[in-house]
Amino acid sequence: MKQPQQRIPVGVLGGTGMVGQHFIKFLRNHPWFEVTWVGASDRSAGKKYSEATAWRLDGTMPEGVRNLTVYECKPGNGAPRLMFSATDASVATEIEQAFANAGHVVVSNSKNHRMESDVPLLVPEINADHLKIVPLQRKNRGWSGIIATNPNCSTVVLTMGLAAFRPFGIKRVIVTTMQAISGAGYPGVASMDINANVIPFIGGEEEKMQVETQKILGDFSGDQIVPLSARVSAHCNRVPVVDGHTVTVSVELDRKPTLEELRSAINGYRGMPQKLGLPSAPAQPLVYMEANDRPQPRRDVERDNGMAVFVGRLRECPVLDYKFIALGHNTVRGAAGAAVLNAELMYAEGMLD
Amino acid sequence: MKQPQQRIPVGVLGGTGMVGQHFIKFLRNHPWFEVTWVGASDRSAGKKYSEATAWRLDGTMPEGVRNLTVYECKPGNGAPRLMFSATDASVATEIEQAFANAGHVVVSNSKNHRMESDVPLLVPEINADHLKIVPLQRKNRGWSGIIATNPNCSTVVLTMGLAAFRPFGIKRVIVTTMQAISGAGYPGVASMDINANVIPFIGGEEEKMQVETQKILGDFSGDQIVPLSARVSAHCNRVPVVDGHTVTVSVELDRKPTLEELRSAINGYRGMPQKLGLPSAPAQPLVYMEANDRPQPRRDVERDNGMAVFVGRLRECPVLDYKFIALGHNTVRGAAGAAVLNAELMYAEGMLD
Amino acid sequence: MKQPQQRIPVGVLGGTGMVGQHFIKFLRNHPWFEVTWVGASDRSAGKKYSEATAWRLDGTMPEGVRNLTVYECKPGNGAPRLMFSATDASVATEIEQAFANAGHVVVSNSKNHRMESDVPLLVPEINADHLKIVPLQRKNRGWSGIIATNPNCSTVVLTMGLAAFRPFGIKRVIVTTMQAISGAGYPGVASMDINANVIPFIGGEEEKMQVETQKILGDFSGDQIVPLSARVSAHCNRVPVVDGHTVTVSVELDRKPTLEELRSAINGYRGMPQKLGLPSAPAQPLVYMEANDRPQPRRDVERDNGMAVFVGRLRECPVLDYKFIALGHNTVRGAAGAAVLNAELMYAEGMLD
Amino acid sequence: MKQPQQRIPVGVLGGTGMVGQHFIKFLRNHPWFEVTWVGASDRSAGKKYSEATAWRLDGTMPEGVRNLTVYECKPGNGAPRLMFSATDASVATEIEQAFANAGHVVVSNSKNHRMESDVPLLVPEINADHLKIVPLQRKNRGWSGIIATNPNCSTVVLTMGLAAFRPFGIKRVIVTTMQAISGAGYPGVASMDINANVIPFIGGEEEKMQVETQKILGDFSGDQIVPLSARVSAHCNRVPVVDGHTVTVSVELDRKPTLEELRSAINGYRGMPQKLGLPSAPAQPLVYMEANDRPQPRRDVERDNGMAVFVGRLRECPVLDYKFIALGHNTVRGAAGAAVLNAELMYAEGMLD
Repeated sequence: MKQPQQRIPVGVLGGTGMVGQHFIKFLRNHPWFEVTWVGASDRSAGKKYSEATAWRLDGTMPEGVRNLTVYECKPGNGAPRLMFSATDASVATEIEQAFANAGHVVVSNSKNHRMESDVPLLVPEINADHLKIVPLQRKNRGWSGIIATNPNCSTVVLTMGLAAFRPFGIKRVIVTTMQAISGAGYPGVASMDINANVIPFIGGEEEKMQVETQKILGDFSGDQIVPLSARVSAHCNRVPVVDGHTVTVSVELDRKPTLEELRSAINGYRGMPQKLGLPSAPAQPLVYMEANDRPQPRRDVERDNGMAVFVGRLRECPVLDYKFIALGHNTVRGAAGAAVLNAELMYAEGMLD
Repeated sequence: MKQPQQRIPVGVLGGTGMVGQHFIKFLRNHPWFEVTWVGASDRSAGKKYSEATAWRLDGTMPEGVRNLTVYECKPGNGAPRLMFSATDASVATEIEQAFANAGHVVVSNSKNHRMESDVPLLVPEINADHLKIVPLQRKNRGWSGIIATNPNCSTVVLTMGLAAFRPFGIKRVIVTTMQAISGAGYPGVASMDINANVIPFIGGEEEKMQVETQKILGDFSGDQIVPLSARVSAHCNRVPVVDGHTVTVSVELDRKPTLEELRSAINGYRGMPQKLGLPSAPAQPLVYMEANDRPQPRRDVERDNGMAVFVGRLRECPVLDYKFIALGHNTVRGAAGAAVLNAELMYAEGMLD
Repeated sequence: MKQPQQRIPVGVLGGTGMVGQHFIKFLRNHPWFEVTWVGASDRSAGKKYSEATAWRLDGTMPEGVRNLTVYECKPGNGAPRLMFSATDASVATEIEQAFANAGHVVVSNSKNHRMESDVPLLVPEINADHLKIVPLQRKNRGWSGIIATNPNCSTVVLTMGLAAFRPFGIKRVIVTTMQAISGAGYPGVASMDINANVIPFIGGEEEKMQVETQKILGDFSGDQIVPLSARVSAHCNRVPVVDGHTVTVSVELDRKPTLEELRSAINGYRGMPQKLGLPSAPAQPLVYMEANDRPQPRRDVERDNGMAVFVGRLRECPVLDYKFIALGHNTVRGAAGAAVLNAELMYAEGMLD
Repeated sequence: MKQPQQRIPVGVLGGTGMVGQHFIKFLRNHPWFEVTWVGASDRSAGKKYSEATAWRLDGTMPEGVRNLTVYECKPGNGAPRLMFSATDASVATEIEQAFANAGHVVVSNSKNHRMESDVPLLVPEINADHLKIVPLQRKNRGWSGIIATNPNCSTVVLTMGLAAFRPFGIKRVIVTTMQAISGAGYPGVASMDINANVIPFIGGEEEKMQVETQKILGDFSGDQIVPLSARVSAHCNRVPVVDGHTVTVSVELDRKPTLEELRSAINGYRGMPQKLGLPSAPAQPLVYMEANDRPQPRRDVERDNGMAVFVGRLRECPVLDYKFIALGHNTVRGAAGAAVLNAELMYAEGMLD
């Protein structure tokens, strides 16, 4: 596999916000990438990163970024080729397109381009081949750059949890989420709303889970991404958990395997990141937990650097075929880590040359 | 309707435990019933209630019970005809049968007899007619008394939430619960297990929800209770909420009504307790909340004395027909209040004569 | 005592905000006062209260205010004589003075005027006589109206907790607070900040507790309020509790009574509201709890309509003389209820004539 | 400094319990010590560690201990010389003395021997010289072994927080704790007690903090440990935090330094573990945080492997001289890590030869 001789400079668009901070934290000691450039709103432009940023994450701001100058989110000013986008949805469309047009490879966590037919929506363990849509994207848009995206945080957990079921033909999925407060950014959810409470609604989340899941689990066929025709229904809830989205899933399959086959398929699942040995890839992307009360977000979410998805309680479903629990780290596997893994895949496939 | 001229003496079996305390609190100012007798383990027998009991509920122990003598859970010692059972499952079978055999009407919150074919499992708004099984029970068992039961706390919320769907033919139900810690009694769930966490397992709960729901929604036909043949699948979770079980439900129907028909059926739903004007009956048993993020346990659970069930977010389900949220108070509507409403129904129907 | 023949119309300045909602909720069934007028920002002016207000409190918006027209916070438009002020500190000075100047009696929860030497800072159980400063206020300011204030929420709990110590000469006080999230309004504290956490800082709170306590416990002497010369040191913390500020207090006295004298002084404490039988006055303003782990906010805060202060664990302090715990409801006794009690006192004393 | 050529075998008494698990987790990759022996109750004796233990901590049971045989807590069975004691207070006295008598060096986290005059109660950054009491202990008791202890978890945080004040003469201390639930072990605090609540009482905790602090801050003088005569008053509370005890402290000194001197003394503080470079010693044992709302338990407790104590908000106290916040990890710095650091110190000083 292609590996860099020296660390590749990267930028973070929206780098002073909460999602941007997750990128900067995740990339702190990355073996391939080094954050050398940060873009933010014009209010922050011209300041040092340490002045422009109220650091909200556990621990302290990484030393390497403290003295970086913050620029406006516009091409130029020495912006490196690879740009991670943590920009707000209200501005992401314009910013990401401007960078792609200027020749940058934009690896975005924003929702704006996810569902466009010529933009890959990647979970590298599942659909690394969706990168084949990139030539069409460039042709359609006249870009020398690229936009590639990762899914919504809860969608990542669901689709990873379903990955091992895919060979058996996923037909129908009903999922209920219990999502962590960190998924809402900062200040995000008011404590008066969530303390000792459940909020049974997250704006736009159910729709995103339903359509993104179909696209991710779809095939690249002909020269397009053909969404899976499976029907997906999501119930999304916020619960008073700090990190980690837990989902309960019932799934109907074309062909019903045994519990043993499934458990073995889960633990044995390996995708392209594992085959390539990408630096952020978990050795075992899906971990089946035997204890009948696991996984649990507070106890399990930090394992494997937050990049694996934990599955448990696989059992027969009286309505569909099987039901189970899945857990993933929403700000790592579901956001910054997802995008970085996408960029590693793209580098390994030569798309950053 | 039959109404008592003066308050009827009642006993509480297992009255010193957490569930028993909920009974005593709920009955504090009851217009029909007055707690005059408490049974507990032989360790407590002979003590005053106030000495035998570590009061765990909010507020203080009701004055009226402080000086009651605690007896062993055996017939005799002046035990009144109507006995509420809050006994632990490990001893409930024997105790409840002994009292029924001795002529007592045992209105039980315990799980032990719920699924026996000649024992009514009541949600009075739904299946008040299941009391017709009582003559068969007496005949089968040779009892001069009766055992009647209420469902598991999460089952009450689910079945009440489904009540208005029943005329449209319930075929398949997938439910995920987010259950409050008070459902596990005291000491119940360790704080190290649930603080800022989700526990995706509650022992025996899913099985109870699945079979109890079928029995409750079944018809009394011929001289038996015929469980509904609908398939029900439950995912049960504990979340860090004090009171109130929240459930997400997807349901498939024989005949799909419009959203408007359903909303109207929910708000307009009235059952036997409302028709009879039973004292613990909520005026409107099902309350549809229009706000897109309601009901919420901390904000809504105490409304209507904890006896109504709140429904929200009714919308199309891409997999089954409709999906929605329901919330109910697990220790009131799901336990003590449920049993008291059962007893009120039985009194009104002349079964305590 | 003076009692109204019919309910007196009152207004709420800042009535659409979180504090304003607490006023409206607290006054819902008030025997003397009826909310007939609401003032808010010009953004809300002209709307109905139900349209202008996102109701954040448990339960639903009181029917009586739903159709009130919201006005700008300016005298006129039929504003009644008695105005409760729940206005934000950024605008309270100007608004409250304008109303006092126009002849209104402004009973304010805002901090702005609390420490002015001619403004009473009232805890009616302690310093009802501080109302004697009103003539000086009117003379100084040339107002036909009045401004009277209640303390910061944590100060109320501390000073009430100290009330029974006052006859023994309070010399030095060290207090640590564990304050509820509802004290910060809405959206207030971000859940990412407080979930499973302690925030050891609340801006301006320690200073307020220190100086307000001295003023409240001071004497009206000559024609001025002479602050108590006791030294007070506060450590203020936010904890993940919904309602109820808990404080630990060590206190040094001029004359050290016995524990028995103190406990008896606490339970026997009665102030002017009790003597007058004001409608919001708790029968027993200070309640000593004997259990060694009480009071506790979640379990005790709603007792006595949130208007009593609960004291526990009174014991010798190895450094000062005694130490204890006190708990009070921050949005009731510490805010809306405090102001309403002030207004009741002022009415009973004839100051609303 | 003395360093081992190969890892030294160690045992853990009470190794299957919650505290024992913390020892085993903390020692997992320890450069000097290797857990080769586990003692527990006779109920567990004879089983493999993995069979005898319900692992309660985050992550999974370390591989190295899974197959260890569990023995009764009696000398013999190949028990190594160095034994960490995580035994319950109800049995610790007898067990620890039996091992010390049999020649073992018992490094105990239990409270039983802490306050005995010939037993060192160590915080190695503060009173490493208290080990000089060991010869007297051996002489008094006729032991070839040793018992050495670490303080109660909250005492560690307080005394470390006070360490830099010691040269200025500590006279009086008032401390309020906000303690994490993990301090109570498992199942420990019921969630019904602590969810969204404060419990203002922890049995025996205040007394321990008061006397242990005096002993730890005392001098070794003549041939005895002379407790500091400072007066200490503690208010101990449980709050819904997972890990990390936060304390507010007011302190009076013989000589009042400037704020600058103190901040500099805190950050510059180094004790014997730092001088010796002990493997578990934090490079900087006291870390002063400049942000006005830090330290916070959820955000800061895991820094520096949980072995540093974080101090913040140092400011003048209107009653005593200064006040501040301190935070430490109760199960690491306050328990397992404390004992391991003690053992490292004893090894470095040649007491394990």
